[in-house]
Amino acid sequence: MPIKPEVLKINPCAKSRLFLIEEMQLRFSNGVERTYERLANRGNGAVMMIPLDQDNNLLLIREYAGGIDAYTLSLPKGAIDPGESMFEAADRELKEEIGFGAQRIQFLKELTTAPNYMGHKLQALLARDLYPCLLEGDEPEPLEVVKWPLADIDNLVMNPEFTEGRAIAGLYLARHFIENNP
Amino acid sequence: MPIKPEVLKINPCAKSRLFLIEEMQLRFSNGVERTYERLANRGNGAVMMIPLDQDNNLLLIREYAGGIDAYTLSLPKGAIDPGESMFEAADRELKEEIGFGAQRIQFLKELTTAPNYMGHKLQALLARDLYPCLLEGDEPEPLEVVKWPLADIDNLVMNPEFTEGRAIAGLYLARHFIENNP
Repeated sequence: MPIKPEVLKINPCAKSRLFLIEEMQLRFSNGVERTYERLANRGNGAVMMIPLDQDNNLLLIREYAGGIDAYTLSLPKGAIDPGESMFEAADRELKEEIGFGAQRIQFLKELTTAPNYMGHKLQALLARDLYPCLLEGDEPEPLEVVKWPLADIDNLVMNPEFTEGRAIAGLYLARHFIENNP
Repeated sequence: MPIKPEVLKINPCAKSRLFLIEEMQLRFSNGVERTYERLANRGNGAVMMIPLDQDNNLLLIREYAGGIDAYTLSLPKGAIDPGESMFEAADRELKEEIGFGAQRIQFLKELTTAPNYMGHKLQALLARDLYPCLLEGDEPEPLEVVKWPLADIDNLVMNPEFTEGRAIAGLYLARHFIENNP
């Protein structure tokens, strides 16, 4: 393994209500110095769920995405609240976003988003044995839930409304996990 | 399809050398108003390449990722320069990052990164028919190139050093494309 650069300094350089941008002074092992910027990882992390019903349908959400000013088809996601485990956060977010709890939630992988310039990590979790249970969330409008057969994910990932890299990764990780853990 | 929220106002609210954070005032079709923040999409977009050699090995890079302060295994990526097509950018970045050009570069999909709060889009491109050609890039240290058999991506995506959601998505998109376009 290569020798990690030495972090000479980390300074906040811009801040908004939700985001914190940091400047990093780095010295690489070959002596080269660089200044990097990154979006700091705040909060307690986040979860992304791959919910699967008893008929092997994925439960997707159609949601307005401000970053691209468009509705997108994606997987339910949300922040982990203080004191919550990732499994508790997943169960709560499912109830808020798709109106189901899950009796069986299994860890698939910790994903990074854009690790070169973001600290954000996302826990990908498979959610099965669903039961109806709706919790009030903080969504500005109800999310539309869309069923999609797991067997048809090759078409889903080519759908122009389904574009989020982390969600595409989550689907394939889930399919691979289920093949080995039915 | 749902009716898109009305964008009442977009204002820059924090800015650094690389990042611009915007505040969006939104009115959803049910009348609910919300203020969102997002990371604006600057520049000309970016490319991510899935390079495959004649023996069906993926060519990965091991690179220091400032966002998580660790070395990661990922796919070569880079910004599209002004005036470049995505294919030209891909060919140049491959030469800079792995020391190969590609005679056949095929479009797989436009990926989003975290569309709820980021405008960033990434063009996923399969690169084949590689030939040695090294261009000087702006990396602070040479990147390590790691060969990995395409047939073994199920193990690669579970590797704790390979975590980027967009890269995992890119691998599976490439494998699916190759099955239909050998």
